[in-house]
Amino acid sequence: MDSIKTPFGNVQNALGGSAMYASLAANFFTRPAICSIIGKDFPKEHMQMLKSKGINCDAVTVAEKTFRWSGMYEYDMNEAKTLKTELNALMEFNPKIPASLTKTPNVFLGNLDPTIQVSIVEQMDNPQKVMIDTMNFWISSKKQDLKKAISKADILVLNEGEARMLFETSNLVQAAKSAEKLGPKTVIIKKGENGSILFHNDEFFAAPGYPLEDVRDPTGCGDCFGGGFLGYLASHQNGMENFRRAVVHGSIIASFNAEGMASERLVKLTREDIEKRFGNYKKLVQF
Amino acid sequence: MDSIKTPFGNVQNALGGSAMYASLAANFFTRPAICSIIGKDFPKEHMQMLKSKGINCDAVTVAEKTFRWSGMYEYDMNEAKTLKTELNALMEFNPKIPASLTKTPNVFLGNLDPTIQVSIVEQMDNPQKVMIDTMNFWISSKKQDLKKAISKADILVLNEGEARMLFETSNLVQAAKSAEKLGPKTVIIKKGENGSILFHNDEFFAAPGYPLEDVRDPTGCGDCFGGGFLGYLASHQNGMENFRRAVVHGSIIASFNAEGMASERLVKLTREDIEKRFGNYKKLVQF
Repeated sequence: MDSIKTPFGNVQNALGGSAMYASLAANFFTRPAICSIIGKDFPKEHMQMLKSKGINCDAVTVAEKTFRWSGMYEYDMNEAKTLKTELNALMEFNPKIPASLTKTPNVFLGNLDPTIQVSIVEQMDNPQKVMIDTMNFWISSKKQDLKKAISKADILVLNEGEARMLFETSNLVQAAKSAEKLGPKTVIIKKGENGSILFHNDEFFAAPGYPLEDVRDPTGCGDCFGGGFLGYLASHQNGMENFRRAVVHGSIIASFNAEGMASERLVKLTREDIEKRFGNYKKLVQF
Repeated sequence: MDSIKTPFGNVQNALGGSAMYASLAANFFTRPAICSIIGKDFPKEHMQMLKSKGINCDAVTVAEKTFRWSGMYEYDMNEAKTLKTELNALMEFNPKIPASLTKTPNVFLGNLDPTIQVSIVEQMDNPQKVMIDTMNFWISSKKQDLKKAISKADILVLNEGEARMLFETSNLVQAAKSAEKLGPKTVIIKKGENGSILFHNDEFFAAPGYPLEDVRDPTGCGDCFGGGFLGYLASHQNGMENFRRAVVHGSIIASFNAEGMASERLVKLTREDIEKRFGNYKKLVQF
C-alpha cells in the first residue's frame, strides 16, 4: 500500500507494489502468477481485481499487516523521496512456490532482498528466462548476495543510477559489459523519462521515453516496464527483433502508468490503448 | 581558446568556440561561413585549417586577445564547471555581415548575448531559416531580450535544463509548446547523452544518444549538433523526413566529437565515419 504525493496529486493507501505493477503489465501478453505477501488489512477488492483479470494469486500469502511505503516527488520527478517505510509482512516473507507454479517458464524477480530472490530461483524447475531487478539499498547493504543473485539471471534490469553505482563507472556501455560478466546475457538500463537501452550479444537497442505532456506519478513505472517486457517475451519467440519490441511494449505501458497516480491508470489500461500508442511510438522514432 | 580537464584528459589553449564546432559540423553538408571575432594571439594554423576545409572566414574580425574559457567535468559529464572566463575580444564584438554574406539562406545564431543575435538577424536579407541557441546565463540576465531574439527564429535549440528554466516547467512537451508560442515553428531540446527531441507542427521526433563506450570530453557537442542539423537541412528539401534525418546527423557528429578532447576528433572526422555510424544508428533504434 502506497501513499504518494507529487506536484500533481496525492493518494493515501493506494494499491502499490512491484508484483502488482509488473503482473498487470505482463497480463496484456501472458497469464502471470504473483508470489508475494500481504496483510489482513489488504483490501479484498484489490485481490478480486487481480483475480478477475486472470492473474494467478496462489502464491500470495497473508500475514498480519501489509507493507506500506510513503514517498513524494519534487518537480523533477526522476527520483522519489521516501518519507516512511513500514516493512510489516515483508519482514516475515519466506516465499514458497507451490508445486503448480514451479514450472513457470519466465520468472521476474522484482526488487527485494537478493537472498530471497535467490531462494525463489532455486525453487523453480529449470526456467527458460529469469529476469532480476534491484535497487540502491541492496547495492550498498548486500552487494555480494546481489552479485550472486544476478549471476543466476538471464536478464538484468536496473536504472542508470544503480548501474553506475553497482559497476563503479559513469559509462553505461561499460556498466553493461561488467554486468554481462556476472552472467546475464541481456542487460537493460532504464533511464526514466529518457527511455532505456538494451544490451544483448554486442548489439544495442535504444528506446527513447514516450514524450508525455502530463506526468502525474512515476511510481511503479520500472515494474510496469519489466513486467511488460518479460510478458511480451513470454508470448513471442526468442530473437533480437522480439527483444526490441518487448522493450517498446514495456516502455509504452510504463508511459501510461506515469499519467495517473499510483496504479489508477494502469488498472484501466486496455490492449487497444497500447496498440494505438505503439503506432505513435513508431512514428516518434522513425527516420 | 579552451582549456579543459575531464577525468579522461586535459588540454590547454585548444581550439574551441561555438562557431568553429558548428561550422566544421555543417561543412559535411554545405559551405558555411563564420561570423565571429578572434584576437591577434589566435594561432594562424587554426584559421588555415578552417579555410582549407572550405569554410568562409570573411566575417571573422581580429581584436587584441582571443576569448578564453577554462572548465572541467566530473565523472558525470553532463555539466561543465567553469573555472575561468576571459571575454577579451567578445567584449567588443559588434558583428557586421559583409554584403557578400547577407543573402546566406540559413543562419545559426550560436549562444551569445541575445542583443547581438538580434543584430545579426537584422543584417540578413530575408533568410529562409534562422536557428537560435542560448544558455542559462542569458535566461537569468536578459530574459526579455532573449525572448525577442527567439521570436525572430524559425528553430529554437536548447538543452533540457535551459528549456525548463526559460519556460518554468519541468515538462519538456509543455516547454516546447511555450517555445512555439514565441515564434519558432520547430523546437529541439537537447538532452546530452540521452539524445534529443524535436517538436514540429504537433509532431515529435525522439533521437536517443548514440551509446559510447569512451566519452572523453563533451565540450562543443551541442554546437556540433546544431551545425550538423542546420547544415543537413541546408542541403536537403524541407519536410519532416529531413528534419528527422538532420537530427540524426547532428547527433552522430556530436557523438564523435565527445570521443576526443576539445575539437581533436571533429577536425579529423570524415563523411565515411558519419555514414558508417548512421548505419549503426539505424540498427540501434529499429524495431
